Amino acid sequence: MGASGNLTRTKLAPALFSLYHKGRLPEHLHIVGVARDNLDDQQFRDQLRGSIPEATDQEWDEFATRLTYATVDVTSADDLWALYRRLDEFDPDENGKLNCLYYLALAPSLYEPTISALSAAGMADDRQGWRRIVIEKPFGSDLNSAQRLNRHVHDVFREEQVYRIDHYLGKETVQNLLVFRFANSIFEPIWNRNYIDQVQITVAEDVLVGERGEYYDRSGVLKDMFQNHLLQLLALITMDPPYAFAADALRNEKVKALSAVRRLSLRDVRDNLVIGQYDGYHYEPGVAPGSHTPTYAALRLYVDNWRWHGVPFYLRSGKGLSRKTTEMVIQFRSPPHMLFPVPDDTVIPGNTLSICVQPNEGIRLEFQSKVPDEDLGMKPVSLEFHYHDGFAGIDLPDAYERLLLDALEGDAALFTRSDEIELAWSIIDPIVHGLDLPGAPAPFRYLPGMDGPPNGEELLLSDNRRWIPGCVEVGYGI
Amino acid sequence: MGASGNLTRTKLAPALFSLYHKGRLPEHLHIVGVARDNLDDQQFRDQLRGSIPEATDQEWDEFATRLTYATVDVTSADDLWALYRRLDEFDPDENGKLNCLYYLALAPSLYEPTISALSAAGMADDRQGWRRIVIEKPFGSDLNSAQRLNRHVHDVFREEQVYRIDHYLGKETVQNLLVFRFANSIFEPIWNRNYIDQVQITVAEDVLVGERGEYYDRSGVLKDMFQNHLLQLLALITMDPPYAFAADALRNEKVKALSAVRRLSLRDVRDNLVIGQYDGYHYEPGVAPGSHTPTYAALRLYVDNWRWHGVPFYLRSGKGLSRKTTEMVIQFRSPPHMLFPVPDDTVIPGNTLSICVQPNEGIRLEFQSKVPDEDLGMKPVSLEFHYHDGFAGIDLPDAYERLLLDALEGDAALFTRSDEIELAWSIIDPIVHGLDLPGAPAPFRYLPGMDGPPNGEELLLSDNRRWIPGCVEVGYGI
Repeated sequence: MGASGNLTRTKLAPALFSLYHKGRLPEHLHIVGVARDNLDDQQFRDQLRGSIPEATDQEWDEFATRLTYATVDVTSADDLWALYRRLDEFDPDENGKLNCLYYLALAPSLYEPTISALSAAGMADDRQGWRRIVIEKPFGSDLNSAQRLNRHVHDVFREEQVYRIDHYLGKETVQNLLVFRFANSIFEPIWNRNYIDQVQITVAEDVLVGERGEYYDRSGVLKDMFQNHLLQLLALITMDPPYAFAADALRNEKVKALSAVRRLSLRDVRDNLVIGQYDGYHYEPGVAPGSHTPTYAALRLYVDNWRWHGVPFYLRSGKGLSRKTTEMVIQFRSPPHMLFPVPDDTVIPGNTLSICVQPNEGIRLEFQSKVPDEDLGMKPVSLEFHYHDGFAGIDLPDAYERLLLDALEGDAALFTRSDEIELAWSIIDPIVHGLDLPGAPAPFRYLPGMDGPPNGEELLLSDNRRWIPGCVEVGYGI
Repeated sequence: MGASGNLTRTKLAPALFSLYHKGRLPEHLHIVGVARDNLDDQQFRDQLRGSIPEATDQEWDEFATRLTYATVDVTSADDLWALYRRLDEFDPDENGKLNCLYYLALAPSLYEPTISALSAAGMADDRQGWRRIVIEKPFGSDLNSAQRLNRHVHDVFREEQVYRIDHYLGKETVQNLLVFRFANSIFEPIWNRNYIDQVQITVAEDVLVGERGEYYDRSGVLKDMFQNHLLQLLALITMDPPYAFAADALRNEKVKALSAVRRLSLRDVRDNLVIGQYDGYHYEPGVAPGSHTPTYAALRLYVDNWRWHGVPFYLRSGKGLSRKTTEMVIQFRSPPHMLFPVPDDTVIPGNTLSICVQPNEGIRLEFQSKVPDEDLGMKPVSLEFHYHDGFAGIDLPDAYERLLLDALEGDAALFTRSDEIELAWSIIDPIVHGLDLPGAPAPFRYLPGMDGPPNGEELLLSDNRRWIPGCVEVGYGI
């Protein structure tokens, strides 16, 4: 649903084709594009062809037989009913069931009416086969709206039928964080406040707002990036080990972690947040004159539990920055006692573990090494792992590929549960409200192509810390 | 002393020249070569010139002014007395003192008579300047002889005047083990029995006995390699953190570690030791017919203290093996709980930390990573650090360079103390005696160029373990 939109063309269709190409799509899967545009099947196929240039003509022709199109107003129960009847043409699975996955690649304002219409058309009833719904982000625009949307969804679908996407969870390097933490025995013993000094999470974009001005100006970087991607990364870093890699076991631990994030009071916001707006933002189409919407934010959070008490988590994200990079930096404490003869004012930095999510996927562990041919001079050097070396010849699949397949297979582990979504909003809401208070500071200005406003650095300097370019030496970083 | 010998030509003179080249030699240092050969200064200089091809003629000429030669029988007090008088010609240091370092690059049988002669000539008396003595290995041929030699040394020199060399301690990567352990905070918390499953130490040589047959046949691999190099590496891996990098602080901890090594009873030897002898050893010049001297040994040891209880240490060394390599492999335990869906009989290997001492110096940490584009497939990949990358352009100095300079500067941290030497012999002695018992097994035969006898593998197989080629992927390993 939303088959003529951008997401379908740029992400969903290429992901589906790639799954098809790898032989991973269920044998009888049919893909029905649904939108209001008046297209026939061939026109729909032609629309998608251009976004999958890697397909040979023969592959494309085969794949295209699975693609059909239906002109439908997704908020109309009648239209959906007619569509639902058409689905009966398709072959059932080996158990004689016809299963349906509804993918809402729609504007958020259409979620509720579409879900109502699906309900009215009887399309949530899973007695004849499973019925699942995939809901894109943003899921709500604050805690209230997210709760309302969840209630609405739950009026129609049971939670286990619902797949809320945060595509960051589909990224290979994000999943690898779980393997890194829990399939290795040497990190978990030191993964706590006793050994970790601070954690930094950066999701930087070099692009500007572009055509998304109207949406973006209403949300800003805190709702657009922090509420979902950054808090998801935070949850994966901070959570306790789940007893199994299963949807609820995993999400229970993430919920526990997010529950422990200290909520900022309105007055705390000023001390723990720096916001910025890039120069020229006001000229973006769709942006309100004099808008104070932040396009950059740096935020200090604490996770108030036994494991993380007192460890600051620095999160930052922004548009118009110098580079596109997503990275997580775990900064360990300095050695408790320096037994080597170093000058009195020397501070030996602690070890730095950098998990480089994109673009140059890898892991880097910085440690102190003896400088050869000096008495006992030390220098940080790094142990490095690069995906492109360790898994040469394996292209990292797009996140949507994994997530689409998981949804088809009924594995919700990498999707966000209703309570997770609401917890994330409950963290972001007071911060956003703090910015709306009278007298709240306007965002600092920064030039596109810089690393955000200088104040983003000062947030850390006040703690005697700095942003760490953890991934810069593996070829990028900010 | 021993200035016409092999060690002086191949190691000491190049190390001294390198120190000179780097401007590290004390300003007034004079080097007096001493041996029985009848040479004049120029002949002595010419003897050494060839082993320092990197010196330009101008550099050499300057360096050579510091080199003189004296024809001396080092076991003759009269000869030494005459030599000692000649030293008065040299300039004293800035405090008006004339300091002397006596380097015994002699056959071990000459140590005692030389020390007696030094004493008789008054050369140990340090009232007019410091007097130090460097003693090469082997230091004794068993516990008794080492104790006797120590008593003899201590009759003449105080312990702090004595520098017993084990050149392994001068290797950059060996010293780096200390920096790695104690200048980084993340390894020490997991450096114990709770997280480490086993430790392997390999010192493999590809060369055969060659011209050392007569000496070697009397000692064998246990005395030639285990008593010194392997036990020193073991001590550095297992010791507790010293309070400072200072000679006695460091050596106290090594002594504690060696004290805790479980002594093998004569009957334990059979279960914990495999010995081998390469095919053709009997034809080496100087080797006794029918000799049972082992040229290969693999040994299982335990360190009976709180930190290491129950962790096996596997040590091996040999001649005529497939490669020259020195490496230490720390094998961590498997993760205690596998939360990822893996087949029932899957054992996820623990992390492996490999410290590659030579020839390709580096560190390698193997960990489990998610295989991209698979559901949750895992594969070991490695974080790697290579000296030649991290310290490009810095040639690793030869171990003797560091040790000579330390001895000149009075830093004994990287030299072996009398109690350390005796403890190491007390570990090796019962093993060697076990092999001398009637009915003790003859060494297993192996072909030169192989990895030793197959039984070297079986020692570990009986523990359900294997030798781990920890450094093989950084370019070498056995």
